[in-house]
Amino acid sequence: MEQLARQIAADNDVSAYVLELAHAAKAASQVLACAATARKNLALVEIANALRNERAAILEANSADLAAASALEPALIDRLKLNDERIEAMVAGVLEVAELPDPVGAITDLCYRPSGIQVGRMRVALGVIGIIYESRPNVTADAAALCLKAGNAALLRGGSEAQHSNLAIARCIRAGLEAAALPPTAVQVMATKDRAAVGHMLALDDLVDVVVPRGGKGLIERVSREARMPVIKHLDGVCHVFLDDAADTGKARRIAFNAKTQRYGTCNTMETLLATPTAAAAVFPRLLDDYIAAGVELRGCERTCALHSAVAAASEADWYAEYLSAILAIRVVDDLDAAIAHIRLYGSQHTDAIVTENFANARRFLAEVDSSSVIVNASTRFADGFEYGLGAEIGISTDKFHARGPVGLEGLTSQKWIVLGDGQIRE
Amino acid sequence: MEQLARQIAADNDVSAYVLELAHAAKAASQVLACAATARKNLALVEIANALRNERAAILEANSADLAAASALEPALIDRLKLNDERIEAMVAGVLEVAELPDPVGAITDLCYRPSGIQVGRMRVALGVIGIIYESRPNVTADAAALCLKAGNAALLRGGSEAQHSNLAIARCIRAGLEAAALPPTAVQVMATKDRAAVGHMLALDDLVDVVVPRGGKGLIERVSREARMPVIKHLDGVCHVFLDDAADTGKARRIAFNAKTQRYGTCNTMETLLATPTAAAAVFPRLLDDYIAAGVELRGCERTCALHSAVAAASEADWYAEYLSAILAIRVVDDLDAAIAHIRLYGSQHTDAIVTENFANARRFLAEVDSSSVIVNASTRFADGFEYGLGAEIGISTDKFHARGPVGLEGLTSQKWIVLGDGQIRE
Repeated sequence: MEQLARQIAADNDVSAYVLELAHAAKAASQVLACAATARKNLALVEIANALRNERAAILEANSADLAAASALEPALIDRLKLNDERIEAMVAGVLEVAELPDPVGAITDLCYRPSGIQVGRMRVALGVIGIIYESRPNVTADAAALCLKAGNAALLRGGSEAQHSNLAIARCIRAGLEAAALPPTAVQVMATKDRAAVGHMLALDDLVDVVVPRGGKGLIERVSREARMPVIKHLDGVCHVFLDDAADTGKARRIAFNAKTQRYGTCNTMETLLATPTAAAAVFPRLLDDYIAAGVELRGCERTCALHSAVAAASEADWYAEYLSAILAIRVVDDLDAAIAHIRLYGSQHTDAIVTENFANARRFLAEVDSSSVIVNASTRFADGFEYGLGAEIGISTDKFHARGPVGLEGLTSQKWIVLGDGQIRE
Repeated sequence: MEQLARQIAADNDVSAYVLELAHAAKAASQVLACAATARKNLALVEIANALRNERAAILEANSADLAAASALEPALIDRLKLNDERIEAMVAGVLEVAELPDPVGAITDLCYRPSGIQVGRMRVALGVIGIIYESRPNVTADAAALCLKAGNAALLRGGSEAQHSNLAIARCIRAGLEAAALPPTAVQVMATKDRAAVGHMLALDDLVDVVVPRGGKGLIERVSREARMPVIKHLDGVCHVFLDDAADTGKARRIAFNAKTQRYGTCNTMETLLATPTAAAAVFPRLLDDYIAAGVELRGCERTCALHSAVAAASEADWYAEYLSAILAIRVVDDLDAAIAHIRLYGSQHTDAIVTENFANARRFLAEVDSSSVIVNASTRFADGFEYGLGAEIGISTDKFHARGPVGLEGLTSQKWIVLGDGQIRE
């Protein structure tokens, strides 16, 4: 099958090649959906073993990718690069997924109805998951492990600059599936550099049940626009921390500093700090010094500029900005209502936090801010699958339909209704 | 606002009209999303009161629709027709929704994480729900009540043949919203007969969060094809009952007869009966007599025809057919595996049942049949929001993404993550 697929790809009929892979994935997905937990876990352990045993081959394939990528930017090359440590992290990631509880088959809410039937819901696999990603080869192993554990087949399309690495990892995944007597076509990596392959996959809504793009905004926008199946995605992470009148000064400084500076490039990093005049007066003098000492560029509203000489004037565009870097927008707002209104207007419904000791304000913020994560008295940086106990995440969704926020195994499943009776009929 | 909207509609600028309504619905949805349970329930009670008080006006509007519809088929006219009893049923439906628990704000799975934060999920409204339906005016009240209770605004587009009736009902809904001090634009009925209005609505994916088409297959297919937002829909209901070797003969006869004959035109009616040779020999002689006595036309495989002289030969097309009438396809299959394979190949993933006293077979059928409802020893006719305890349903979804099977209040909501901390930061 792989032979055939490669042949077809070599013949440059990329549309037929993608269709072939998707058909094989769909067939495999029916086996995966009913596979026993122990068998799926065995496959994951065997994949981890193969990744360890084939380390030399993976590094050699990665060298070929790196050699061809020498003209790319250093940041891209760093993302592409594998070494012993990164392979070990990949192995650990796969083994962690094996340790997670199996979501498939879990029955919830089973209760008797007046008719005498019992009605409940059973968690089931979604089918075939398409993953479209950029240069990091570790996504190949991470995404495959999550899809597999949730009973799904996976169709993986990585960056063409990482193709040798991805195919070497794919061989390990295949070996693991075979060792567990699961269909080797349950995880397939597209072996073509033809950029048209993505477009062909996005049109196959009868074979691919959901698509997860992982990468830059350009990729995500393209996938959202073209996909004829549902997409699990997040676009922007314009996250806020709001310091309420009743904020504890110590917590406010600690949380606001951490939310911005713990990592700059992540989607759950704070991009705009909001504060009431009281909170700003109490917290800003030392907090803004801390930011400046950490090298953060500050852009504030008029009231913020009046409080600290190192703050530049913010423009309207700053309130919409996802900097993903050491820049912070700061705005003094009148009160909780104004903070919620600001977040509604400029936010991206990703992650927003309030710092307050006031019970009523915390309760209102939780109810009224419509973001995928709403936080009281903790850093926005906690909005993450591992921190939430999902074990690992395939992505963070800012959509409201289906999964929202960090998407782990559960987001890669659905539920069906089950009815248990003893001969009941409708009268 | 309504005045303006009607004016614009009269001016025939239907695109601007739909955009105006959708903007107003979006604005209202932010209020609805945070509205207190008591306020939403008050609105529902006031809507019910208004429907009762305005009965004469509703019937007069309905007469105008009926007068214009005299050329239509009798079945369509019957669906369109309102009378005291049907208005009373509408009132009862709205009051039942008022009695249901409020799904919005429910917090689940709140637990402590090693970092010290508490993480859980809060149920939230989806936003604006577009409902596109055909001739039954009662959908206007039913759908509005469900959307409202789930904290959503609704944009309703009924059949043009029912427009006077729908607008009369819309006035009652508006009165109820106003009496509860909720935005009257939270439920809007499109006051235009221009068929282009649907297309304009389906393009507004930034204002309308999800669309629910309710009607014939043509409508549902069109909406699925054109909508740029998610769609909650079901296409076919090719439902099966499988009589296992170990079926109790009495339960098998009762269930198979009820699943076909209790109502012919519903999507959860059995369309194909499957049985093992043993079950067929034990059950078919009397069961097929029962069907014939009830006027059901039988189309069977060779083995079925050999068992009963009144069975005509089925063609391949019969296994795919959703008759929605007094016709039944019947096939003898070798065993459970063959039954599951038949359901996979020909079924529509709607509702499928097994009749068996064998525990292992029941367990396998539940796990391996991938339909929105999977039933053991009960009629397929139970696949229904009321029977499942949802109280009322906006529709039945045969998709796997988001909601699946009967969709009640919960399917009209989403969940966000909430985090409660005490100053925690990421290290």
